[in-house]
Amino acid sequence: MHTSNAPLDAIAFRGAMSRLGAAVNLVTTNGPGGFGGFAATAVCSVTDSPPTLLVCIQRASSAYAAVAANRVLCVNTLDLAHQGLAALFGGKTPTLEREAAAEWQCLATGAPVLPDARVAFDCRIASQWTVGTHDVLVCEVQAIAVAESRGAGLLYIDRMYATIAPIEVE
Amino acid sequence: MHTSNAPLDAIAFRGAMSRLGAAVNLVTTNGPGGFGGFAATAVCSVTDSPPTLLVCIQRASSAYAAVAANRVLCVNTLDLAHQGLAALFGGKTPTLEREAAAEWQCLATGAPVLPDARVAFDCRIASQWTVGTHDVLVCEVQAIAVAESRGAGLLYIDRMYATIAPIEVE
Repeated sequence: MHTSNAPLDAIAFRGAMSRLGAAVNLVTTNGPGGFGGFAATAVCSVTDSPPTLLVCIQRASSAYAAVAANRVLCVNTLDLAHQGLAALFGGKTPTLEREAAAEWQCLATGAPVLPDARVAFDCRIASQWTVGTHDVLVCEVQAIAVAESRGAGLLYIDRMYATIAPIEVE
Repeated sequence: MHTSNAPLDAIAFRGAMSRLGAAVNLVTTNGPGGFGGFAATAVCSVTDSPPTLLVCIQRASSAYAAVAANRVLCVNTLDLAHQGLAALFGGKTPTLEREAAAEWQCLATGAPVLPDARVAFDCRIASQWTVGTHDVLVCEVQAIAVAESRGAGLLYIDRMYATIAPIEVE
């Protein structure tokens, strides 16, 4: 085991976090602030009463102004088939090109819903907190959409895309 | 695509969340409030300045009092080999039995570190917010430990344990 308790630098932390795998999602918004979208792994469930999840967003990101103005977002959880879309929303792609990359639908809030997302959570931002360079968005789920065919989930771990392999429960 | 924008119930939300895969972690604590530990998928990175992650904890959980009293915790990210340990920390196992389940080490804060964790984040709780039935713990990372041999990560998705399968990047 390699250990470190010297003051932790950002690079060491990012390297360590890369070992914790996570689902890849497109977080999208639309409304008075315009379209915005980014790829995110920092999404997690908080409580089911009321149905609530968290999304972490970098305040310097290109999508931040639109998310902050619109106060709605959709978490679109990706399948293996969406790997190209994940890369497009994770890079420096201009916003117009991101918007043109799919035939978005909408549910309750008007946030863009990817039609074949593994699952889509259409949310209203209920509150938010600033932590360093990021905001933590507390999102109340207003509507959900579930793909009829269930592909293999897209993951990001060890700085690579990956997918799911079933195992036997011991 | 099945959609729902009727008022969402907890069961529908939990079913939808099960489609979003996540790494399985043991969150552990020790100190004046005693040992506590639980299996958690609701862990995510927030910012690297300072190195900070979030953990969501149900206030009704058996580990809550110890975490709240100790103000320190370790996020131990699990490998496939830890599936039995994950089940033990996810069920109704008494606290003493959880504590006896591994040869815990410690780093900076005294929170229990699983020696062969994929990665372990030793944290001090910097702040916390209540959201419904849960608290969101904002944790500043004080030290990290990385396993020398890197096994396959343990995931929970579609209500089953799973592991990682590499794919080619498109």
